[in-house]
Amino acid sequence: MTIREDILIERIRKRIPSSRSKLLRVGIGDDAAVLRTSPGMEWVLTCDQFIEGVHFLAGVHPPNAVGYKALARATSDIAAMGARPRLFLLGMALPAARTGRWLDGMLGGMARAAKQLGLTLAGGDTARATSAKGGVALGVTVLGEIRSGQAVRRSGARPGDAVFVTGQLGAAQLGLELVLRGMHRQARWHRFLAAHYYPKIQVELGQWLARRGLVSAMMDLSDGLSTDLSRLCRASGVGSLLYGDKIPAVLIPKGLQKIGDARQLALHGGEDYGLLFTVPERSVVRIPRAMYGTRITRIGEIVAGRGVRISGAGGRASKLAPRGWDHFKTTR
Amino acid sequence: MTIREDILIERIRKRIPSSRSKLLRVGIGDDAAVLRTSPGMEWVLTCDQFIEGVHFLAGVHPPNAVGYKALARATSDIAAMGARPRLFLLGMALPAARTGRWLDGMLGGMARAAKQLGLTLAGGDTARATSAKGGVALGVTVLGEIRSGQAVRRSGARPGDAVFVTGQLGAAQLGLELVLRGMHRQARWHRFLAAHYYPKIQVELGQWLARRGLVSAMMDLSDGLSTDLSRLCRASGVGSLLYGDKIPAVLIPKGLQKIGDARQLALHGGEDYGLLFTVPERSVVRIPRAMYGTRITRIGEIVAGRGVRISGAGGRASKLAPRGWDHFKTTR
Repeated sequence: MTIREDILIERIRKRIPSSRSKLLRVGIGDDAAVLRTSPGMEWVLTCDQFIEGVHFLAGVHPPNAVGYKALARATSDIAAMGARPRLFLLGMALPAARTGRWLDGMLGGMARAAKQLGLTLAGGDTARATSAKGGVALGVTVLGEIRSGQAVRRSGARPGDAVFVTGQLGAAQLGLELVLRGMHRQARWHRFLAAHYYPKIQVELGQWLARRGLVSAMMDLSDGLSTDLSRLCRASGVGSLLYGDKIPAVLIPKGLQKIGDARQLALHGGEDYGLLFTVPERSVVRIPRAMYGTRITRIGEIVAGRGVRISGAGGRASKLAPRGWDHFKTTR
Repeated sequence: MTIREDILIERIRKRIPSSRSKLLRVGIGDDAAVLRTSPGMEWVLTCDQFIEGVHFLAGVHPPNAVGYKALARATSDIAAMGARPRLFLLGMALPAARTGRWLDGMLGGMARAAKQLGLTLAGGDTARATSAKGGVALGVTVLGEIRSGQAVRRSGARPGDAVFVTGQLGAAQLGLELVLRGMHRQARWHRFLAAHYYPKIQVELGQWLARRGLVSAMMDLSDGLSTDLSRLCRASGVGSLLYGDKIPAVLIPKGLQKIGDARQLALHGGEDYGLLFTVPERSVVRIPRAMYGTRITRIGEIVAGRGVRISGAGGRASKLAPRGWDHFKTTR
């Protein structure tokens, strides 16, 4: 199938909201996008790659889910700074076999994510993957806006702060395990697959927390609680104690208990894309138990020192090693 | 070889200039970068992918050249808007075999490009390519700064404007042809390989032209003059006439004349990354013949109508089809 780049760009424009935003002086179709800045605001910027064989399996993951998730996971980093998602750039390398229906499905999923997340397409770059090696490679750059100085970093946690997470932990990992075992066509496990395919990004809650100045540190849960909390602690120069009986673990139905232990999935499972944040003691009362349809759970506290410990039966606490996802470790 | 993501990020930081820029409120190591905006300035933004088997051949192209070019070609879009390059984000997916010496070489080349182009690393994302399919995939996002309203678009060319290009055309394509024929180890052809491996980006000239308001439209030459000029004309709603005897074609030495015709390489060869721009008649006298070490050549004029024509012997002009590089065309 032969398709011209200009025609491809038109197809993308038609499917993904890319109407002139007042934030864009120059949008799609020129060499680069030009951003206006609103007075008193700053831009927040992140990029993510989403690559066939690494982040998704083209034979298994529906193209719609690929497009949705590629954009959602990049936007999660914007939400975790407390910023409002505004614009994105899309880079694609596509083998010829993926420029037809697969591409339409992928763009459809991405358009849905863009609408939910409040994003407008501002530009990008396309290339054909010509070699035998070439799978689909998506590069997503997302821009958010935030009032100057309000962005929430990972490094602000202080001893005495409370540690919170949103949502249930481990559901996305359970969905991935179903995919890896070829069990993803069973309709009764749909909600775990949905957690894996279409993660909900906490864009409203992130902004709400940042605007009110309630949080001392925040990040998104992408690689698993044990790994992400240890990163937050290292960035802040502190340690933390998790309450072992308070972790909001996914409930595993009977038929799936052989797949994994709920506690292990909750502590080490990746890609939940909830928010992990710390709150100074004086502000804890202002954190609701649920908001924007999402449960918010206090799971521990920040302590002096370093590393993450978790309390167990009998009041004893033990070290919790970061055993979440690390792309560059060969064992987990 | 096992390597932790955090350690990898430290290796990148050590090699690529990423010291706190005053433009960055938050840089590497958090979920996203936060940009300050200088008063009266706008951000210019572009992303590019650079993928093994598509944009480079890992067995042929030196890792140093891969890193250099990945950053240089993305920055070329910033130069073509007339903006000053400032910050970049780097996304990488790497097979395990490329996390050692290859990575160091690649980062070395990228660091050199960053220094030359005035860029500081502001963040990024790393992943391991785990599948058999996985080659190296680099995603580069570059940000430039420009005074509000000064960015030069593709769409401003008007009938009567003069058309200019910088540099010699076709040298990078000649270098690529040498690579494809396995002739890239012959030292005497070094300058063509250098044009292909280490393209010079016209960041100073682009800014100079934009600051003085001399140009009505500008873009970079990435896919070949015939294709890029036809895009500029379409964006501007005009046509153009090229002076067939004024095209600054690469001079092909005797031993290489079987590889390609100089005129064809100059008209259709890609990746020269010079600037293509149009100048209203009243400003033509202010365009020097050379600047910042680069030749500047008037090669044609903008006319009413559409399409690109080229004058030939006997004063007759013929249609010039866009036959440069299009990633989504199967034939050239």
